[in-house]
Amino acid sequence: MQTFTSRRDILKLAGLGTIAAASGQTFAQANPDASRAAKIRKPAYKIGLASYTTRKLDLDQTIAIAKQLKLECISIKQDFHLQMNKPVEEQKALAQKVRDAGLDFYACGVIYMKTADEVKRAFEFAKTVGIRVIVGVPNHELLDLTESCCKEYDLIVAIHNHGPGDKLYPTAAGAYELIKNRDKRLGLCIDLGHTMRSGINPAEEIAKVADRLLDFHFKDVNAAEAKGGTVEMGRGVIDIPAVVRALDKIGYDKLAAFEYEKDQDAPQVGLAESVGYLRGVIRTLQE
Amino acid sequence: MQTFTSRRDILKLAGLGTIAAASGQTFAQANPDASRAAKIRKPAYKIGLASYTTRKLDLDQTIAIAKQLKLECISIKQDFHLQMNKPVEEQKALAQKVRDAGLDFYACGVIYMKTADEVKRAFEFAKTVGIRVIVGVPNHELLDLTESCCKEYDLIVAIHNHGPGDKLYPTAAGAYELIKNRDKRLGLCIDLGHTMRSGINPAEEIAKVADRLLDFHFKDVNAAEAKGGTVEMGRGVIDIPAVVRALDKIGYDKLAAFEYEKDQDAPQVGLAESVGYLRGVIRTLQE
Repeated sequence: MQTFTSRRDILKLAGLGTIAAASGQTFAQANPDASRAAKIRKPAYKIGLASYTTRKLDLDQTIAIAKQLKLECISIKQDFHLQMNKPVEEQKALAQKVRDAGLDFYACGVIYMKTADEVKRAFEFAKTVGIRVIVGVPNHELLDLTESCCKEYDLIVAIHNHGPGDKLYPTAAGAYELIKNRDKRLGLCIDLGHTMRSGINPAEEIAKVADRLLDFHFKDVNAAEAKGGTVEMGRGVIDIPAVVRALDKIGYDKLAAFEYEKDQDAPQVGLAESVGYLRGVIRTLQE
Repeated sequence: MQTFTSRRDILKLAGLGTIAAASGQTFAQANPDASRAAKIRKPAYKIGLASYTTRKLDLDQTIAIAKQLKLECISIKQDFHLQMNKPVEEQKALAQKVRDAGLDFYACGVIYMKTADEVKRAFEFAKTVGIRVIVGVPNHELLDLTESCCKEYDLIVAIHNHGPGDKLYPTAAGAYELIKNRDKRLGLCIDLGHTMRSGINPAEEIAKVADRLLDFHFKDVNAAEAKGGTVEMGRGVIDIPAVVRALDKIGYDKLAAFEYEKDQDAPQVGLAESVGYLRGVIRTLQE
């Protein structure tokens, strides 16, 4: 749409830019209110589905829901939809089915890695099904091994924060401290809900871990405390416009997935409301 | 759509801005029109469901969907959900069921009125089921009678525009010309989709009929021409933020209902996406 960029252009044409230049201030500096309303760019990140959302539904239903909602990519919860214990050929066939549907099957997770064998198994599995990202929770003592596997397999591990009660990675910023000096393929998947449940402002958290933000879980929760539960986006306490602005500010250009935990037997409607809400926010922030 | 108007506004603003700089006023103070970028108020209108959306589902399912989506009010398509031909006591019982569910059952429609008897029947029916608004299409020659019934029953008739192909009321602004000097209980229900299908900017249409806008149908369509069909809000061509701003600008404080025509056998998911989208837009425009 015709938006803030053109306004600036027009203001410049109309001479306001000259005034600002003379005073040594930009238009935005001279008008704090203007910067608050500054538009975001069209997001460079893809928006998809984390199939934990559809854990009570099968892979076909999961694919159908993602397609109906025009979600572009998918992060599959392997325990429910990819039978990690099944033969490799079966896993490959299921992965192919997802891709044949036109979805960018980019990740699996969350995958817990409590032993060296589980780390190696996760990377082998990722290689088998052809994903680029493991949304993972490796034990702290396995971070060296995880890092070397990231290099060996050329795969990303995005550590997922699970909020209060998570002994390993309650917050993304905490996890960041443990990986910030490691290979850049080791990063974070911020979970909006668990971040908020930790009483942390998600927009600030995004800024803190910006250079290692490699995946993202969209959701909303009904309280900024441990007991907060997932609700339809927009009905909870997370300032979604602030989150979208924060992602814009860091130029986030990777992937993001809705993880809607409510209504596990029939999450379609609440998920759809959430997807619509995010799209409405993104659309409006672009003007 | 929005673009040309905004540019003119901004050029005007830019000129005023120069004056503001000299007068020591802030940009926003000197420019009430800066309201395009300024925040809207919390909407004073209620948002609900037009049950034409759920025409293939029964009343119980319709109520359940409205409740799940936290829609506050309902405009019932009588042919499908209120058995206009059934005994009065049955109609009353169904109306009570809707209200017992906590929904503001404010309207029925669209009700076509092609004869004097049909006008009287519509008002009697409205009285029976206790609604405040008839979303109606009275023949032109019945407008006198319709107006006198509005007075007699103290009920509102909101004329619904059906776009290209509608011989009686293709556009809201056209209908406005026929009722603007009549009793104020005779007004319009702008249908966003049919307005856009007529190639009309809905935001401008809202401004044109502001003092007689008495109901509103939210939707989106995939083309600004006769053949445009309803799609999930946000996926179509209607500038929803502009519509919400227009409703804010006229201080719209009545009722509005989603009429989602797509997916008639299972409209829940698309309707939910639409409801979420509108809420995301409204939320973002308030900041």
